[in-house]
Amino acid sequence: MPAMSKASKSARKGQPFHHRPRPHERRPTASAGPGLPPERVIFGLHAVKEAWTNPERRVQRMIATRSALETLAEAIAFASAKGFARPSPEVVAREALDALLPPGTVHQGAVLLADPLPEWDLHDVLRAAEPKQRAILVVLDQVTDPHNVGAILRSAAAFGALAVIVTERHAPEMTGTLAKTACGAAEHVPLARVTNLARALRELQENGFWCVGLAEEGPAALSEMRLDGKVALVMGAEGPGLRRLTRETCDALARLPTSGPIASLNVSNAAAVALYELARARPDAGSDPRT
Amino acid sequence: MPAMSKASKSARKGQPFHHRPRPHERRPTASAGPGLPPERVIFGLHAVKEAWTNPERRVQRMIATRSALETLAEAIAFASAKGFARPSPEVVAREALDALLPPGTVHQGAVLLADPLPEWDLHDVLRAAEPKQRAILVVLDQVTDPHNVGAILRSAAAFGALAVIVTERHAPEMTGTLAKTACGAAEHVPLARVTNLARALRELQENGFWCVGLAEEGPAALSEMRLDGKVALVMGAEGPGLRRLTRETCDALARLPTSGPIASLNVSNAAAVALYELARARPDAGSDPRT
Repeated sequence: MPAMSKASKSARKGQPFHHRPRPHERRPTASAGPGLPPERVIFGLHAVKEAWTNPERRVQRMIATRSALETLAEAIAFASAKGFARPSPEVVAREALDALLPPGTVHQGAVLLADPLPEWDLHDVLRAAEPKQRAILVVLDQVTDPHNVGAILRSAAAFGALAVIVTERHAPEMTGTLAKTACGAAEHVPLARVTNLARALRELQENGFWCVGLAEEGPAALSEMRLDGKVALVMGAEGPGLRRLTRETCDALARLPTSGPIASLNVSNAAAVALYELARARPDAGSDPRT
Repeated sequence: MPAMSKASKSARKGQPFHHRPRPHERRPTASAGPGLPPERVIFGLHAVKEAWTNPERRVQRMIATRSALETLAEAIAFASAKGFARPSPEVVAREALDALLPPGTVHQGAVLLADPLPEWDLHDVLRAAEPKQRAILVVLDQVTDPHNVGAILRSAAAFGALAVIVTERHAPEMTGTLAKTACGAAEHVPLARVTNLARALRELQENGFWCVGLAEEGPAALSEMRLDGKVALVMGAEGPGLRRLTRETCDALARLPTSGPIASLNVSNAAAVALYELARARPDAGSDPRT
């Protein structure tokens, strides 16, 4: 199981996770299932596998079908061999899981109840970036759809980004839906929350980050920029795009080479393309973000 | 309104749409709202705008909030000036639209009832590609999630692909959800259905297409390949990937330069990255796919 041993050996090493309590006053989410609090539920085979084998996770319950347990057997053996504290899986029929979660949830037969991972703040991001020559951050300006943020976390993991930065408000909670879409990447790439995005960009700049805002009207294509060192890719929500102050705070604006009648990409697709461009332009930057 | 006039002037030109009737025996979809047949419903501001201004569309009803109508005013004026047959919009409260559609549908205040666009078959694809020096196709091997296929259509439009090819079975219907995710791109990039994917790939090869399958174990990175002329990007579903026969029929397998513990991308993100790589490597190929 190479993904898992890689995860435990390298990707988590050097993550200065601080176990700050999460604020409990966030807005309630609409997707609460009957009984299971959405911010503590993880579902989907990949998300469950990565959470189960993440030593940072405190897991209270695993509820799974027999078939999902077979798929997870290696992960369960791995966590057991490592001595992680894990509860005994509860084997149930698929219908019992359907009843525990909101209708239509794609749980793939596997559900965890676990404490949320501690989220990072800007200080954590700066500390993790400080010893590095190169680092990539994705900064999201009010991207609210958990599917998009989840897919962006996944691309961030695949292309070796250090963290994804969102705002305290107008950003989704780390729910099961986000974790499922992230396909396990939420265990590897921290989501960092900041109160004021423009101020955070200025702090990043003071700490050596070049902040590039993606915007269709950017004067240069991202591929034409020389982007080595530390780069923060700043992306706005679809429709409104980057807010004025965000845009003005960026060091540069760049576009992607789209054309045609529908020239804009879905925000997670644009993030994937931009992260790919950075990885392509400097292949050694994406190899291991955490070391 | 540049997008719209561009759409009518160039993007649809040369689309040899044949008004073949769609098969009526497809599987029923689960997302049917009370009363509105899902394959005839279009919702979301972008999808409605592009459908309304597409001369190929036969529209029976527009049901919209006053605020959405204001947003669509330019599109309505455009279609009217062009003399497209369009019904009078029915102005309703947002709640009335909520009640017409499945719970949670993000309709943004605008709903159309319209005939589905005729879908292409392989013959249509080959005829459209025949006079071109360069053409890009996206071929999907059993990608079933309408959100993914919609996002892929959108990226195909943004990077100038000629069509997206799916199989008759194990591919989503062109529903409102798919069209909404495609954000209007379904009006510009045809979805073509084929019965047998391996046979379709061989016909594409006989007609000058180089078929590249994306696979994590591909021996070369996509960016290392010389991809001019006509290229079909072949992508499998997440998890199973390309089926064996699909894989064996491809001329080459290529990977994207991902790394780390979560090395795989969401399929629509992988498609966006691959289309970007093709557009980047030969910038004149993506400018106008239809002329």
